[in-house]
Amino acid sequence: MVLRLDYRQSDFESRFAAFLTTKREVSEDVETDVRVIINEVRARGDAALHDFSKRFDGIDTRTLGLAVTADEIEAAYQAADKDVIAALELAHDRIASHHRRQMPEDDRYTDALGVELGSRWTAIQAVGLYVPGGTASYPSSVLMNAVPAKVAGVERIVMVVPARDGALNPVVLAAARIAGVNEIYRIGGAQAIAALAYGTETIRPVAKIVGPGNAWVAAAKRQVFGTVGIDMIAGPSEVLVMADSDNDPDWIAADLLAQAEHDVGAQSILMACDAGFADSVVAAVERQLSTLSRSETARRSWADFGAVILVPDWQAAIPLADRIAAEHLEIATSDAEELAGRIRNAGAIFIGRHTPEVIGDYVGGSNHVLPTARSARFSSGLSVLDYVKRTSILRLGAEQLQSLGPAAITLARAEGLDAHARSVSIRMNRWDGGRDRE
Amino acid sequence: MVLRLDYRQSDFESRFAAFLTTKREVSEDVETDVRVIINEVRARGDAALHDFSKRFDGIDTRTLGLAVTADEIEAAYQAADKDVIAALELAHDRIASHHRRQMPEDDRYTDALGVELGSRWTAIQAVGLYVPGGTASYPSSVLMNAVPAKVAGVERIVMVVPARDGALNPVVLAAARIAGVNEIYRIGGAQAIAALAYGTETIRPVAKIVGPGNAWVAAAKRQVFGTVGIDMIAGPSEVLVMADSDNDPDWIAADLLAQAEHDVGAQSILMACDAGFADSVVAAVERQLSTLSRSETARRSWADFGAVILVPDWQAAIPLADRIAAEHLEIATSDAEELAGRIRNAGAIFIGRHTPEVIGDYVGGSNHVLPTARSARFSSGLSVLDYVKRTSILRLGAEQLQSLGPAAITLARAEGLDAHARSVSIRMNRWDGGRDRE
Repeated sequence: MVLRLDYRQSDFESRFAAFLTTKREVSEDVETDVRVIINEVRARGDAALHDFSKRFDGIDTRTLGLAVTADEIEAAYQAADKDVIAALELAHDRIASHHRRQMPEDDRYTDALGVELGSRWTAIQAVGLYVPGGTASYPSSVLMNAVPAKVAGVERIVMVVPARDGALNPVVLAAARIAGVNEIYRIGGAQAIAALAYGTETIRPVAKIVGPGNAWVAAAKRQVFGTVGIDMIAGPSEVLVMADSDNDPDWIAADLLAQAEHDVGAQSILMACDAGFADSVVAAVERQLSTLSRSETARRSWADFGAVILVPDWQAAIPLADRIAAEHLEIATSDAEELAGRIRNAGAIFIGRHTPEVIGDYVGGSNHVLPTARSARFSSGLSVLDYVKRTSILRLGAEQLQSLGPAAITLARAEGLDAHARSVSIRMNRWDGGRDRE
Repeated sequence: MVLRLDYRQSDFESRFAAFLTTKREVSEDVETDVRVIINEVRARGDAALHDFSKRFDGIDTRTLGLAVTADEIEAAYQAADKDVIAALELAHDRIASHHRRQMPEDDRYTDALGVELGSRWTAIQAVGLYVPGGTASYPSSVLMNAVPAKVAGVERIVMVVPARDGALNPVVLAAARIAGVNEIYRIGGAQAIAALAYGTETIRPVAKIVGPGNAWVAAAKRQVFGTVGIDMIAGPSEVLVMADSDNDPDWIAADLLAQAEHDVGAQSILMACDAGFADSVVAAVERQLSTLSRSETARRSWADFGAVILVPDWQAAIPLADRIAAEHLEIATSDAEELAGRIRNAGAIFIGRHTPEVIGDYVGGSNHVLPTARSARFSSGLSVLDYVKRTSILRLGAEQLQSLGPAAITLARAEGLDAHARSVSIRMNRWDGGRDRE
């Protein structure tokens, strides 16, 4: 039986609060193993990568080469299903169009005192993109991570993807080609993260590493953080669907299951005012579950972390939705637009009965890398901003220094920082040794 | 003797590479102690805060109260030096004006297919600001951290500051009042971070924690990350000064020392084309050192981490500056503006002979919280963007779903995600049970 919370019940607040803090991930303690792997790659470079690839992925990269060749990529692209290529190209173009609107603009201006200030944006020079192997190897994620980097102007996008027993997903390679990835290496795990962060004979280091991965990859990203930048560490996916009784229960059930099939730790939450409608959705979930190829995963996710939350009205639902701060929020109600405007915390909002969250996973144009585990309270989905950085600019002439200098000196002295005060006063000719040469 | 690197020498590259990786911080292993403190605060709330404040800060918060009262804040403000208050107010207004320009704009549009897309920015609801005690308790940092939050529209800014032996820096309280901080608590260390992240009887939790702190505070921020957002973990401060021989060596020496006096781990680097000029600056540093109240700190920083880098010309300096990726980059050359335009990695650039970095510390208007330890290669200084988050919006009607649905279904099937495909197809009436009710 799926968890059911009813706002009208007296113990709702305590049950809801407990629900919010439910852990959906088993954290594996791999810190020590990961530290050893990183140190090996730093010390032995390519040789360490070859050894780890043989041990963990069962492939001989000494013979195959670490780099995936242009010929291999081309062959994968040519061999891929034409409909899939066309769909990837449509997705690519829509993601690129949307993300181009996110490019921040430089700002340079002179204030009333004549002080020049500015914010200048530049692209990160090189970015590494981790792509998992196995079932979590999603071509759509290659586009979602690489296209914003390309739009930002990143010059070098380096993809790493483990080739378990030698095999690479050809659709992943095709997506990388479409996205304009510059280099691809058939390595994975903590060793791939170490190679991206520190470089080896074959792989030049990058300045930032993005992309999802397993516990080893996540731990490695945390350990190399500082040496390079990293994106957020994503948790299992989640959806909150707010639906009124004018929806077809089967549609809503399909949306809940689309989330649940991702991972046993995924979470699907239905919020409804009408208990009868909620019952129909739960029944539809049960019916549809049996027909899915990933029914075992979806069934466990729904049983362990799924929930139905009954609310008296949508007004009461707003603060609850803000506390859940869902990665994906689907609003299928008659006043969906208005309700969306009143909810503050969500990674992405899908408005109306014809916007299933899945459209956002692939072809909507917005990014599918979104804050999980309630972090939409304080963070945002992946965007062009993750691939640029801002340099602030300040420029004063002698006159502006005369205007602002005294306040700076006062504050420096209040903070006990003599040399700070002198660095200003010496230019204002208050310092004995000061000689203004300009 | 300060480290000297000469571009023309054959071993320059290896010495420069080694210089870049010099560790300037001793990392203390306080992870376990911090974990215990956080767990205590989660389990016992206020009582744990009282106990830790007695033990670590020597104050009785049970009697004094955890909250700093409005009367205490007002008294500190009234008692403060009037010149200092005026300087803080000038700084506040300039910081607010500059940061208002950083507020991102919402974007909502309809594309050629009729799909509605959008990016909506909202402020984080509550933010915690850590202010260190002792000598690192800087009123200017209160403004730099709190004003952008206020500009962003954060409703609740909560400051924590340890009161060693009961004392609070009155200028810090005055700065908090000027910045519009909403609540202040006299607590510090890992226990203050835990209180902000998890809440206690007296302190409601926040969604993000910012501000500098010692090893305990940094470790606590890392441990609560995920439950709340955190800002970057700042390392010791640094400056790179590029100066030609038309500068007064005393001015440049003063700038190098302004950085060095912060911390024994701070780093001041002079880059020059003219060896004779560099010698004069080094001699001026030695002369000025003896007159500083913090000369011991500055002397150790300069001796341990200071450096003079001689380059044949400014063209050769550009890639070196990009690899250093200095927190503060001061360019005091005749073509400063042009040179600034060609350097990509720097937290902030101070252009010309009359823009000492210290102006940016206090009253320039730009933020002084900037990326340290080469992280300007991939990250930016503190801004309004750190206090807002973006929700993406997607809205399709039945017609748009017919347009985009087939590609989404193709990609979902290519990724082996049946329920994803069904969530779209059921709305396109391809699913047996599909009934379009709209």
